[in-house]
Amino acid sequence: MKLTDLVTPVALIDLPRMQHNIERMQAQVASLGATFRPHVKTSKCVQATEAQIQAGAQGITVSTIKEAEQFFAAGIRDILYAVGLAPNKLAAAGALMRKGCDLKVLTDSVQSAQAIATFGKEQGLCFKVLIEIDTDDHRSGIKPESAALLAVAQALESPGCEIVGVMTHAGSSYDLNTPQALIAMAEQERAGCVRAAERLRAVGFACPIVSIGSTPTALSAKNLEGVTEVRAGVYVFFDLVMHNIGVCTKNEIALSVLTSVIGHQEEKGWAIVDAGWMAMSRDRGTQKQTNDFGYGQVCDLNGQVLEGYTISGANQEHGIVSRAGQPDLEIAKRFPIGTQFRILPNHACATGAQFPEYQALDAHGTVQTWSRFYGW
Amino acid sequence: MKLTDLVTPVALIDLPRMQHNIERMQAQVASLGATFRPHVKTSKCVQATEAQIQAGAQGITVSTIKEAEQFFAAGIRDILYAVGLAPNKLAAAGALMRKGCDLKVLTDSVQSAQAIATFGKEQGLCFKVLIEIDTDDHRSGIKPESAALLAVAQALESPGCEIVGVMTHAGSSYDLNTPQALIAMAEQERAGCVRAAERLRAVGFACPIVSIGSTPTALSAKNLEGVTEVRAGVYVFFDLVMHNIGVCTKNEIALSVLTSVIGHQEEKGWAIVDAGWMAMSRDRGTQKQTNDFGYGQVCDLNGQVLEGYTISGANQEHGIVSRAGQPDLEIAKRFPIGTQFRILPNHACATGAQFPEYQALDAHGTVQTWSRFYGW
Repeated sequence: MKLTDLVTPVALIDLPRMQHNIERMQAQVASLGATFRPHVKTSKCVQATEAQIQAGAQGITVSTIKEAEQFFAAGIRDILYAVGLAPNKLAAAGALMRKGCDLKVLTDSVQSAQAIATFGKEQGLCFKVLIEIDTDDHRSGIKPESAALLAVAQALESPGCEIVGVMTHAGSSYDLNTPQALIAMAEQERAGCVRAAERLRAVGFACPIVSIGSTPTALSAKNLEGVTEVRAGVYVFFDLVMHNIGVCTKNEIALSVLTSVIGHQEEKGWAIVDAGWMAMSRDRGTQKQTNDFGYGQVCDLNGQVLEGYTISGANQEHGIVSRAGQPDLEIAKRFPIGTQFRILPNHACATGAQFPEYQALDAHGTVQTWSRFYGW
Repeated sequence: MKLTDLVTPVALIDLPRMQHNIERMQAQVASLGATFRPHVKTSKCVQATEAQIQAGAQGITVSTIKEAEQFFAAGIRDILYAVGLAPNKLAAAGALMRKGCDLKVLTDSVQSAQAIATFGKEQGLCFKVLIEIDTDDHRSGIKPESAALLAVAQALESPGCEIVGVMTHAGSSYDLNTPQALIAMAEQERAGCVRAAERLRAVGFACPIVSIGSTPTALSAKNLEGVTEVRAGVYVFFDLVMHNIGVCTKNEIALSVLTSVIGHQEEKGWAIVDAGWMAMSRDRGTQKQTNDFGYGQVCDLNGQVLEGYTISGANQEHGIVSRAGQPDLEIAKRFPIGTQFRILPNHACATGAQFPEYQALDAHGTVQTWSRFYGW
């Protein structure tokens, strides 16, 4: 199969770019002395994850129990479920552990810790638990200096579970766009998580795992002292949000949506394509950043960026391609019906999720189908 | 199965509300003398579509070839593919026709009309084609008075196709929010499409089908003279965007996302739930409307609206529930871990698309699983 054989829209992976991204991250984390645990919520694809493990990744991070189940079925044992465990997911988590999955789960409250401890004890299971630390006042987690940290640790002193470490995610790194700010946030993320581990060790918990990470901080960190592992997800594909943050170039973005021109509004300078928001996702992550790419950056069929052309508007199955500034009144001649584009997405995690499969394009121009799952 | 047995997040259909919405639309269109052809891109679900047909719908509208294939496989023959037919989808459209599907396709350009005519002739097929009319300067289509209308009609004079009608969609009705403006837009949509049909008839094309519609205009129309059929999609579930436009109440919204509290940030007045943007979709359609509901309106487990509480922020698998105005510093006591909510979505088409299945809840509180498909 070749690109021009595909019926659009298609989620296309540029394999040389993906491989480059995987090796870049692995080398960065290894050079600072930590192991790397990719977050597979971005690809939800076994082949992409195998490429990460092949490059040296140790274990995976997941955002849903379904991801844990699917990747365990594909042969991966070491899985960190990095979302606070809800009571109604205890049974599924326990079932995975019984099957031999080396599952690690997360808590940031006494109430949830008690639920895990009680369920584990009742079921004769010992849950491996990480305590979630809030190092950037962003979302969930316990502040490193909070009294709640020790209260949660005490709630986990039970035959039903054991504390295996601390974990943080500096998600507010997504709001930054200078190397200096990113380096500082990476250090804040590291220092806060290490501090939480030290407080737990001071009262007798071994706390072997100190797990941190986000794509921007992982690629910006200069020092990982005290950190045992780093996590990142979207780096495998990158996207326009990461481009605006400053951690990749457009030419490193490995995921695009292949689309076809289906019509025009010539006097408006529009080409209409068959990638609307259902294909691109509704993610407008670049809207509040310095460069707003609408629903995506338009590239030609070979992946060359067509500067100034974006998907400036989208309905469910219609995208409007237009040029920034002066309308392109020659657009119908320039891009006649049937013209194919690759569209770089705002957010690879959201765009990938719209597709049941990827088409993986190798350096020789041939494509193969990689399955992808979704849901919970 | 009951609601409390479900592992969250779940896409929940309130069946009595859905049935009410279906009957309301069917009665409105029938009272004005047209037939109704629902757009199934909203549900992508056979059972929901069967309920529409049971209520009197004649044929369906689809937004992708995959929808046409899936619903044809489920026994529905009369299908309008309401997106301009791209050259690379001619083969799949032709294959459906060969299997006996009464497929109707769309064009709005000479170039695409010629491609359909040529392919049809080569393959010994006669494509039934509607010409897309632009009645609101919104997206695709030909203006009713444009010379291009007759040029496209001429390009379709071929043994490979026949003109069966004209079609328009007044998508700009989504930008309105008063009954007066909606009534005027409905009339503009009707008059423009009827005018295009009259111009075609004046030069000898029979143009039997005059197809118009969007949920807001379909529910607002006072007169459908000259219109043969009306299309609408999102009305089957409704959503917060439709609520803001003024065509439904919150208590008519039939789709919600069932979610569980997994943590808190008490001092911020946050409850963290397991419905992030992956479950709600990234659609922020109410952002530019008068009432911005964030990522959704929070209701209790029984569907009662909790006024002022919305999902004010979202990450992939985390939603932040907070109260408008003063932070709810009692939120951890009010909504402890494990509390379940139903979240009304901004845009039902986008939220439904995130789920492989719906849980359909009947008036007796029992749920059954309805499958849903996605992709192209």
